[in-house]
Amino acid sequence: MVDVQSVLEGNRLALSRLLSQIENDTLEGRQALAALFPHTGRAKLIGVTGAPGTGKSSLVNQIAYHLRNPEEGEPKKVAVVAVDPSSPFTGGAVLGDRIRMSSLSGDKGVFIRSMASRGSLGGLAWATAGIVQAFDAAGYDVVLIETVGAGQAEVEIARLAHTTLVVEAPGLGDDIQAIKAGILEIADILVVNKADRPGVENTERALKTMLQLANSTNRSDDQLVWETPIQCTVATDGQGVGELIEQISNHQAFLEKTGGLTERVRTRLAAELDLRLREGLITKWKERSADGLYEEMLDQLVDRKISPQEAVDQMVNGGNGK
Amino acid sequence: MVDVQSVLEGNRLALSRLLSQIENDTLEGRQALAALFPHTGRAKLIGVTGAPGTGKSSLVNQIAYHLRNPEEGEPKKVAVVAVDPSSPFTGGAVLGDRIRMSSLSGDKGVFIRSMASRGSLGGLAWATAGIVQAFDAAGYDVVLIETVGAGQAEVEIARLAHTTLVVEAPGLGDDIQAIKAGILEIADILVVNKADRPGVENTERALKTMLQLANSTNRSDDQLVWETPIQCTVATDGQGVGELIEQISNHQAFLEKTGGLTERVRTRLAAELDLRLREGLITKWKERSADGLYEEMLDQLVDRKISPQEAVDQMVNGGNGK
Repeated sequence: MVDVQSVLEGNRLALSRLLSQIENDTLEGRQALAALFPHTGRAKLIGVTGAPGTGKSSLVNQIAYHLRNPEEGEPKKVAVVAVDPSSPFTGGAVLGDRIRMSSLSGDKGVFIRSMASRGSLGGLAWATAGIVQAFDAAGYDVVLIETVGAGQAEVEIARLAHTTLVVEAPGLGDDIQAIKAGILEIADILVVNKADRPGVENTERALKTMLQLANSTNRSDDQLVWETPIQCTVATDGQGVGELIEQISNHQAFLEKTGGLTERVRTRLAAELDLRLREGLITKWKERSADGLYEEMLDQLVDRKISPQEAVDQMVNGGNGK
Repeated sequence: MVDVQSVLEGNRLALSRLLSQIENDTLEGRQALAALFPHTGRAKLIGVTGAPGTGKSSLVNQIAYHLRNPEEGEPKKVAVVAVDPSSPFTGGAVLGDRIRMSSLSGDKGVFIRSMASRGSLGGLAWATAGIVQAFDAAGYDVVLIETVGAGQAEVEIARLAHTTLVVEAPGLGDDIQAIKAGILEIADILVVNKADRPGVENTERALKTMLQLANSTNRSDDQLVWETPIQCTVATDGQGVGELIEQISNHQAFLEKTGGLTERVRTRLAAELDLRLREGLITKWKERSADGLYEEMLDQLVDRKISPQEAVDQMVNGGNGK
């Protein structure tokens, strides 16, 4: 049984149990999330995405460490959700947990949770949204949502965040796909990590050029525009991480000033509502449809007697015979 | 108007028009696909996935070239669908088209189509399935489905294929994520491309070790097991590509012998049916639900007055008041 009150009071064991319930999408987990939902909406959600090899995990560790040990002000309670959509089966996430513990271990103000994708992408995005809400309700000030790569899956997960960092690094491959135009549209801040490596100027220059191109087409003089900054960091020794955190604060202040925060929150909740509505509709359909209808349609499909669209038309409009 | 008969007869212009209709998910495109569906199920579908920088596109070009110019037997008609789920907006795919044309240009037996993701991942997987069916119906013997990366998005698209190649290359980064355990589960054949580069032995050895680990746990003596081969290639000069095509034939023969092909086709069609059923259900819900209900629920969600699950319960069970 999930102890919602203990979660609200910041009990780590209760929270940990809740996270497992959410990840396994149990009825109990859903009920607890519903009960916790009124207590959400306070945490700052920061997405961190980038290709493998950019040093995202080290950077996330450093950000967490800086937020725990600020030069001025109170330390923040920090949660990290590390999502690996490219590990659809098992293995990756657990190893990640062990590697990242070292610099933050023993700090009760930090909670790290790794998730590997199980089954569908929708399932992962859904579970991640739930996990983020649980941390939010449990009083974590900042939730760092780390995803591998910047594919569609990662983009959907990054949309959970208020501020999204896209991490690049010098010399990651000569492919034309190495730095993508599409990424600029989700990046609030571009980070060039491993900035002590050769080629950092090239990476920075390429990013700057792409930003200029994007800005020249999107520019509208009537409204305040966020100018995506490029921040160089060396996550292994913390160089540039303080400045990066300042950039994050600047972005959050910008969002609050321009009303962009409300807009992002609304977009995020709309995405979650869509996802759950689809799930709710299919569950209801399964309850109501005639036994074996689905399998029968699939058989006809395999024999090419009916097209997928015709099958669905029958299933949606004609098949609710129970 | 899509001319279904001309598509069946192999008319490239009609096919090209159809592909656009499918990509834009028009009613016309859907109707044409339904009409073409009985003519599908004959093409061999080969998935090719791997991280950026592994040289996938060159490899796909080479495979297409070899299938067009076989040492013995008839040349095959080859279609290539290049899907880039990590380019969710615009730009990437078009450039890809231009780069890949050189070695195959002018060959009427090859049809190359690049797709960038628009909107949701579901939309992309759906459109890709449709494009593959169109090529299949139009009489292409082999459809190569190329995706960037091996994230969840790519995994879902790779599942369209009968045989999936996962492409690695030496020296792609020191990250623990560079070679993923999860990838083994979708790979029917592992390709180490750029095999003329330093470090190829290390990459091969690492892959072999992982395969052995996977085999020792999955091994069942009662049934025929496909032993995932590792094939080294140099796509820039064609080295190893002939052998790779032989491995692909071996895999397809194995699938036919063990009944695995039917199973894969069924799984693939079930996935498509699921996707379309969800879409059909939400379309029907939108038609039937009271005007403004969705927005009203979203407002309550933003104000944290109701949880996402509660909202959906009301929308699915109580909201069909129209």
